[in-house]
Amino acid sequence: MTLASTPSQQSLSAALVDFTAALGADRVLTAQDDLREFRDPFQFETWDENAASAVVMPENVEEVQEVVRIANRHGVPIWTLSQGRNNGYGGPAPRVQGSVIVSLRNMNRVLEIDEECAFAVVEPGVRWFDLYEAITAGKHRLMLSIADVGWGSVIGNTLDNGITYMPYGVDMAMQCGMEVVLADGSLMRTGMGAMPGNRSWHVYKRGLGPTVDQLFMQSNFGIVTKMGVWLMPFPEVYMPIWVRVWRDEDLPAVVDTLRMLMLDDTIRMVPQVMNTILLGSIMTRRERWHQDEGPIPDGVIDAMARELEIGRWIMRAALYGDEAVVDHRFAKIKRAFERIEGADVWGTKHAPEEIPSLAHPAERVQGGVPSLDINAMTAWYGGEEGGHIGFSPIAPLTGRDAVVLRDLMRPMIERAGLDYIAALLPVNARSFAHITMVIFDTKNEAQVRSAYEVSSALVREAAKLGYGEYRAHLRFMDLATDQFSWGDHAYRRFCETLKDALDPNGILSPGRHGIWPSSMRDTATRADAKGS
Amino acid sequence: MTLASTPSQQSLSAALVDFTAALGADRVLTAQDDLREFRDPFQFETWDENAASAVVMPENVEEVQEVVRIANRHGVPIWTLSQGRNNGYGGPAPRVQGSVIVSLRNMNRVLEIDEECAFAVVEPGVRWFDLYEAITAGKHRLMLSIADVGWGSVIGNTLDNGITYMPYGVDMAMQCGMEVVLADGSLMRTGMGAMPGNRSWHVYKRGLGPTVDQLFMQSNFGIVTKMGVWLMPFPEVYMPIWVRVWRDEDLPAVVDTLRMLMLDDTIRMVPQVMNTILLGSIMTRRERWHQDEGPIPDGVIDAMARELEIGRWIMRAALYGDEAVVDHRFAKIKRAFERIEGADVWGTKHAPEEIPSLAHPAERVQGGVPSLDINAMTAWYGGEEGGHIGFSPIAPLTGRDAVVLRDLMRPMIERAGLDYIAALLPVNARSFAHITMVIFDTKNEAQVRSAYEVSSALVREAAKLGYGEYRAHLRFMDLATDQFSWGDHAYRRFCETLKDALDPNGILSPGRHGIWPSSMRDTATRADAKGS
Repeated sequence: MTLASTPSQQSLSAALVDFTAALGADRVLTAQDDLREFRDPFQFETWDENAASAVVMPENVEEVQEVVRIANRHGVPIWTLSQGRNNGYGGPAPRVQGSVIVSLRNMNRVLEIDEECAFAVVEPGVRWFDLYEAITAGKHRLMLSIADVGWGSVIGNTLDNGITYMPYGVDMAMQCGMEVVLADGSLMRTGMGAMPGNRSWHVYKRGLGPTVDQLFMQSNFGIVTKMGVWLMPFPEVYMPIWVRVWRDEDLPAVVDTLRMLMLDDTIRMVPQVMNTILLGSIMTRRERWHQDEGPIPDGVIDAMARELEIGRWIMRAALYGDEAVVDHRFAKIKRAFERIEGADVWGTKHAPEEIPSLAHPAERVQGGVPSLDINAMTAWYGGEEGGHIGFSPIAPLTGRDAVVLRDLMRPMIERAGLDYIAALLPVNARSFAHITMVIFDTKNEAQVRSAYEVSSALVREAAKLGYGEYRAHLRFMDLATDQFSWGDHAYRRFCETLKDALDPNGILSPGRHGIWPSSMRDTATRADAKGS
Repeated sequence: MTLASTPSQQSLSAALVDFTAALGADRVLTAQDDLREFRDPFQFETWDENAASAVVMPENVEEVQEVVRIANRHGVPIWTLSQGRNNGYGGPAPRVQGSVIVSLRNMNRVLEIDEECAFAVVEPGVRWFDLYEAITAGKHRLMLSIADVGWGSVIGNTLDNGITYMPYGVDMAMQCGMEVVLADGSLMRTGMGAMPGNRSWHVYKRGLGPTVDQLFMQSNFGIVTKMGVWLMPFPEVYMPIWVRVWRDEDLPAVVDTLRMLMLDDTIRMVPQVMNTILLGSIMTRRERWHQDEGPIPDGVIDAMARELEIGRWIMRAALYGDEAVVDHRFAKIKRAFERIEGADVWGTKHAPEEIPSLAHPAERVQGGVPSLDINAMTAWYGGEEGGHIGFSPIAPLTGRDAVVLRDLMRPMIERAGLDYIAALLPVNARSFAHITMVIFDTKNEAQVRSAYEVSSALVREAAKLGYGEYRAHLRFMDLATDQFSWGDHAYRRFCETLKDALDPNGILSPGRHGIWPSSMRDTATRADAKGS
């Protein structure tokens, strides 16, 4: 793994004095006990390549600006996180060892909820839980499109191109209007917010001139301190639906049917097509099914599929809308999937008020009610603290592409002694993310190493077939971005040009998604990324 | 009006020699007759502040790269256009007098139409007409979301944040994946296209790392030479619908009803709420209604409303989908708007194959069939060659905001002796563009001057109330961007930082949407923009 230069002890010490003067000693953490919770929870415990040297916790915009100015003055790299729940992709850990983490967990105010135009404005520390609770407490008849696990930050998830599931999750469409602290400590508002007192900052996605919001996603060009989030008015009916097929070879038919139903707007949200082990790992532990070390054989997967009644592939999805429209669409969906032999399609209609009391966590998540229930899957190998790596290439939403990816990944992962655990997430009607959960026991160093090695190999092998990740794990960021080499790395050069112009001292999250400031772009980094 | 420095005759001459060597003499136009068609057609004929010195016409990407290299070598500003049909906003004319126009009209190939994933890939010279014809010729059952006038470029319209009307017109969502010539002559592909051979370039809107596509809209950071465009599969039913109200004061109720129907997904496309004179100007000439010089009084507008049966406000919209869903939605829309006293709501269902033979141009436009019919409105004051200026602020989609804008604009425009001609275009469920068509007779210099003066005043007055333009006229670009001054012009400084880094010689479309290279950012420009 590539390691960039760490800050000198001298500059770090000087910066810590200034951080303490600005924030107070209780908001500058340096004790090993405090730093532990900012490590990647899914690595082997003795690994420390991504250890931070300190954590600072500003509580308002002015303090974030001051932190940035101090970092500039001392040339200390800072790594910003909202909640830092980037699990499976490196968690809160910084790319550069010794970086100072800027945790925005305490900037957690819901600044506004506008019922008329159906949006909220939040700070970075606001979690799915928090925004959901604020909406509920205000008795707003509005729903929030959320991620699977409720502890994540709304802004943090958005800035990682994270996926949510309701209609505004399609193409990650829910973000509108930002306030950003730039590398020089100045403050910018994007879109219509660039005009003082403009009424459309959080209702129109562009401004006059180029739209720069997406520049701050998966990058290190600024620190987002405020963001607009679109909400959906309560529909008349919410209907979670399930489609189950019994043969592995039914996968392409499921995907092709889904594409047609999404292209014609029958399904407009982000479904998940899960394999047996993925859903099974949320419901049970591995030892119930298979006691050997090697990967679970097909016969056992078939047994899981039958006993848990989850099939070889199972799709969760949902309809939202007027009851007449939902009824028509469900009937159409049922007809379409039931052309696949043995397929089952079912669903139940609910009023939006009933969603919090639904039993299945997936049915609550698709209805915008957050929990931690789906996190259970990481304990697949036993214990409380399993880990996973997310490997998530994007592909066209066709049965052919789904089969190519499955047939690439399953053998590689199984050769590494692990199970192929997959969910296909169509983020729009034309493409899907193949979320591969490489799950392992964090106490078993050999297994952890295998998991990281096969994940790294997958990055390269998928790229050879024309599939790139939508989001890269901290340990493979350079490798993953290195695959995007068209035009002799024209896109990376473009990003580096922006980086050097916007952050000349290279202090903001160096290395995030492969973007390095000039001072750290040595040939060693590149060669290592290519060769490792 | 602000004028930036023009290229010296010496550097221009040297560049023309090189352009001619690269492209051949027939693709380097300098004769006044040839240049005439690249002037803004909607200015008074003797004005020449925005005259180009030459037009070059590359026919492929390599030639565009060569043109950029030559411009760099000689420090000659180039102004790129696709078709240059930017009418109402300056047409094809460059911001800097003496610029060399790079016309991409001859790069007009439809490179790909993918029926399975429903997208096309086009070059900049491809017009709505051309892509529509390619889809039809290939017998693809796909529909293209188009602008009102069919001669515009698909890429050109997209790069100006131009509005189209079908479901993919919502938030201008149809663009996916670009190829761009940068200022140094190098070539970049965005999104997943940054990976060689990636299969998802035109189906997934992001890549790994920050998404840069929107940086190339309303800016001057590169020249887009290829773009993906999403198409919509034929719905079972297409149903254009009309809502007509008879009193000017019904406007807020129309807008509030529309917001609720868009937020709950009953209407998902871009409607137009037009006032009497706007639709009337497409159907008739002014002299039929009013022979005086001054603005048309309310009594005459009421007469127009009755005789043409178009009401004081009339909304065009459309439904697309399964017949059962369309029927449900139309009934809901009818019920909702008929709560307004005297309102009429009607519509007719059609099979997609019938759209080309529909009589009303608006019903064809909303169905994706291009024509020039709507252009008739510019002849409102007589003759063949009327002009207009588009003044188009964005507002939240509420009745209150619609009334504030109407009551700001109508008196100002009428005091200038012109008619208030307006269409409200909700580009999503939460905001609308108030498209104000300041129509005038281009042969009447006093009237042309009045039109430009009042448009310029409107930019300032709307900003004071919190409304900014979605797109600025060439003559008001500096003034319009000057209103976006939050944080002491933080957004403009950000754009300038990008400009200087990406285009150090400042050759690409200097001044486009207020973004100037460092060499032209003199204090005179700024003071003038503020004061004029």
